[in-house]
Amino acid sequence: MANSKYEYVREFETDDKLLRNVYILVRIDGKGFHKFSAAHEFTKPNDIRALNLMNHAARSVMHELDDILIAFGESDEFSFLFRKSTDLYQRREAKIVSTVVSLFTSAYVYYWSDYFQDSKRPLYPPVFDGRAVLYPSEVEVKDYFAWRQADTHINNLFNTSFWALVEKGGLTPKAAEVRLSGTDSKDKNEMLFTEFNTNYSKLPAIFRKGSVLLRGSIPKDMAKDAIIPTLPETLPGSTYADAAPSTEPSAQSDGPATATEPEVTQRDS
Amino acid sequence: MANSKYEYVREFETDDKLLRNVYILVRIDGKGFHKFSAAHEFTKPNDIRALNLMNHAARSVMHELDDILIAFGESDEFSFLFRKSTDLYQRREAKIVSTVVSLFTSAYVYYWSDYFQDSKRPLYPPVFDGRAVLYPSEVEVKDYFAWRQADTHINNLFNTSFWALVEKGGLTPKAAEVRLSGTDSKDKNEMLFTEFNTNYSKLPAIFRKGSVLLRGSIPKDMAKDAIIPTLPETLPGSTYADAAPSTEPSAQSDGPATATEPEVTQRDS
Amino acid sequence: MANSKYEYVREFETDDKLLRNVYILVRIDGKGFHKFSAAHEFTKPNDIRALNLMNHAARSVMHELDDILIAFGESDEFSFLFRKSTDLYQRREAKIVSTVVSLFTSAYVYYWSDYFQDSKRPLYPPVFDGRAVLYPSEVEVKDYFAWRQADTHINNLFNTSFWALVEKGGLTPKAAEVRLSGTDSKDKNEMLFTEFNTNYSKLPAIFRKGSVLLRGSIPKDMAKDAIIPTLPETLPGSTYADAAPSTEPSAQSDGPATATEPEVTQRDS
Amino acid sequence: MANSKYEYVREFETDDKLLRNVYILVRIDGKGFHKFSAAHEFTKPNDIRALNLMNHAARSVMHELDDILIAFGESDEFSFLFRKSTDLYQRREAKIVSTVVSLFTSAYVYYWSDYFQDSKRPLYPPVFDGRAVLYPSEVEVKDYFAWRQADTHINNLFNTSFWALVEKGGLTPKAAEVRLSGTDSKDKNEMLFTEFNTNYSKLPAIFRKGSVLLRGSIPKDMAKDAIIPTLPETLPGSTYADAAPSTEPSAQSDGPATATEPEVTQRDS
Repeated sequence: MANSKYEYVREFETDDKLLRNVYILVRIDGKGFHKFSAAHEFTKPNDIRALNLMNHAARSVMHELDDILIAFGESDEFSFLFRKSTDLYQRREAKIVSTVVSLFTSAYVYYWSDYFQDSKRPLYPPVFDGRAVLYPSEVEVKDYFAWRQADTHINNLFNTSFWALVEKGGLTPKAAEVRLSGTDSKDKNEMLFTEFNTNYSKLPAIFRKGSVLLRGSIPKDMAKDAIIPTLPETLPGSTYADAAPSTEPSAQSDGPATATEPEVTQRDS
Repeated sequence: MANSKYEYVREFETDDKLLRNVYILVRIDGKGFHKFSAAHEFTKPNDIRALNLMNHAARSVMHELDDILIAFGESDEFSFLFRKSTDLYQRREAKIVSTVVSLFTSAYVYYWSDYFQDSKRPLYPPVFDGRAVLYPSEVEVKDYFAWRQADTHINNLFNTSFWALVEKGGLTPKAAEVRLSGTDSKDKNEMLFTEFNTNYSKLPAIFRKGSVLLRGSIPKDMAKDAIIPTLPETLPGSTYADAAPSTEPSAQSDGPATATEPEVTQRDS
Repeated sequence: MANSKYEYVREFETDDKLLRNVYILVRIDGKGFHKFSAAHEFTKPNDIRALNLMNHAARSVMHELDDILIAFGESDEFSFLFRKSTDLYQRREAKIVSTVVSLFTSAYVYYWSDYFQDSKRPLYPPVFDGRAVLYPSEVEVKDYFAWRQADTHINNLFNTSFWALVEKGGLTPKAAEVRLSGTDSKDKNEMLFTEFNTNYSKLPAIFRKGSVLLRGSIPKDMAKDAIIPTLPETLPGSTYADAAPSTEPSAQSDGPATATEPEVTQRDS
Repeated sequence: MANSKYEYVREFETDDKLLRNVYILVRIDGKGFHKFSAAHEFTKPNDIRALNLMNHAARSVMHELDDILIAFGESDEFSFLFRKSTDLYQRREAKIVSTVVSLFTSAYVYYWSDYFQDSKRPLYPPVFDGRAVLYPSEVEVKDYFAWRQADTHINNLFNTSFWALVEKGGLTPKAAEVRLSGTDSKDKNEMLFTEFNTNYSKLPAIFRKGSVLLRGSIPKDMAKDAIIPTLPETLPGSTYADAAPSTEPSAQSDGPATATEPEVTQRDS
């Protein structure tokens, strides 16, 4: 064979199989999305079109990869939890992470015009990165999602307050930051209510709590993984939401905004 | 802080920094591109639009990531070589691999309609995966690219012969395979010439040898890496081709096929 | 500082921390012990002095490393199970494995003359190697020890039969092997009983089942690890043995040789 | 097979093969040697018996493992450099590190009474740990050894000064530390000369520069590794010393102290 003398270079490839029988969590993040959201004039503090596009891309990932049990999204970030017993790509880390990131990115660009209907495509190609983390037990998995959801709450309360001060209160960004420095959650809730007539707890749950996508049907071999029956009840502030991905992408473009919002209920931070 | 009690979950993240001062090679591959190319009726054995789109996506990657010195593409696969001294993302493996794959995927979908001009987007989102391999010395790097290019030659000669038998010779795919089984390069060249009036060595170099993208300008701190001055001359069958990525994507859509073809010369397999 | 310009070489050191909250199992093996046991004329199929020395070395390891919960030994091999929550050396793999191997080796040479009382030291320094394996759950931990103990049984029944044929039956090793080929456990038990008047099940448990060392007192933070209360009952063929290492090594040299069950007394943690 | 149902636990073992074609450096360190040296009343600042025993143990390691090219020792630490092309244990990290550490520990205990002739064995078993580091090029390898040798110089000059103040000058350890704080090399040299009539540069090289062990004969396949012909000349302050390990351990016990001292010459720090 003409290429056999070069094939020794394959011996430099290393085995990156992830430990068996532990949860695999893949988290992806938008790269440079501060700039990306400014360039596309995303509404502040939340752009429902952008969030729905994120959710659509995440559903595309779950649609392709059966072993993802649950996904959680906020802002330009999404986390995907694989069942403990998954043998996807023999648990090779680079293969799993790169496939999730590529699926997500592809869908994000692909469905862009369904959510940003005045443009054929973004001004330039958006980019996400990703990484895998292993969690041995349900306790850590629940705390992982609790951590991301607490982050959502903290960021969104701050952003809501900040943009109220800037857009409705007429403060400069600098002044708004000074005004908010040292305030706690109660202070911000109070300020929003008294100064801007905004009841924070009445804002859409998708803004305050992020998006939870749960696989609607039970995957085969479920008995091996204990996460599904217990996680939804215990994830702070979440109720079960059938988020089985639509298999017909065109359906989403008809009326995406409300249909794709996962149902989530009040949580106490 | 409301989320501080959950933050311990970050301690499960592992350090995946790649060894310093060795070449990092990231190779990406199309997933399910046999089906994807059939669904989009790519011309056989090569579709110049698809190859040019691959090259465009690869240039987008090189444009964003300064430390990529050279890239090589064939079919639905592309390899990117980072300089030994790169400190991109502190050499974190998942970050590097996922970013390259996301950039490539994003650009592939984004520029699709520039190359497949009768469609706004593909029928469904395409997916790539990727992995990193470390090579300590130039010898292995050269042999790596020699390996991929030999692979290109072998596959393309087979595919060219196969599709000549099927599309011009009227054989069934099964019969074409039987006919080619046991033949060597010389047999296939001979058959193409005598039966199909095709001089294989006159076919476009991009089909026979793949695409080589070289960074046109010398990156800063080049002294640390010895690859640029020596690799182009020694990579079998390659001459220097200024492949610095265009910064204006729209330019490509004017006349992609010829402009983006890297110059490569005859090689002996 | 005179050496500061060289210190960059430390950046090539990689982080090898093991995943948190999973069991760490370190298994060590004698290297070239076929030759070592022949050179020292170990009695066949089992040399009680050698087994007791192995157990003594293992107790020394458990004595130094509080987070080892249980150890299992057979022949020239020993396995050490660390509690899930151990933070020994921040769970750095090389540090943990090398320390266990060094402790074991050191004690093996150190206590040699207490068990082989006619010689000051072995004919040459014995060597062990080691490796770590991670197990996420108790199920795998139990099956790990069941695997090693089944291995002990299979090997010992074969060896007992083989050496009976050779030493009592007068067969050549070759002929003994041929005689045993294709036989199952029942056949071997039968043969030992009828031909050599040996009731296999009455042979010392240390030969048939290996040695189990259990920590006698409950380590602090035990609540984090569930293994201790359940493992002893379920490990096939084992009964609970208080195997907390003696804190006075000299005590062992008084009368170690006969007790096959590891003798250990109460230890203060 | 009785144990086949448990064998799945082997699937949790991970592949830890080290990258090919880079230097493997294994460094071992004594654990708790401050206490160990005090318990055995090592002479201060250097105990030639202890250093010679370290060198003996290191030679035992080099004797067993042909692919170690050079070793460097100081105090209770030793570094072993494997040739780039070594395929020892298929380059499995745990196997390599644990074997080196076990060999070294075993020899240290084994040969103890040859160097500490008034005792059969140490008061308790000594322990070492170890780790592997990869270095892609000769530059880093040279700088690694330069780093360790500069460390030897700095530590030894300090210790020599400190113990002169304490043992000859009658200062308390506390006072000696205060006296030395803020001094540079020149100050310490001056103080040793004027106050204690000690010409530091005339002290034995083994104290000031550590021990370098070089393989005396060229290993097979040397052409693959470039280190041997160039390293000795360039390692700061070292000349070639034939340090091929003796194959007869008993020979060492006759007159160890002078015979085992590697020849090293002055270096500029």
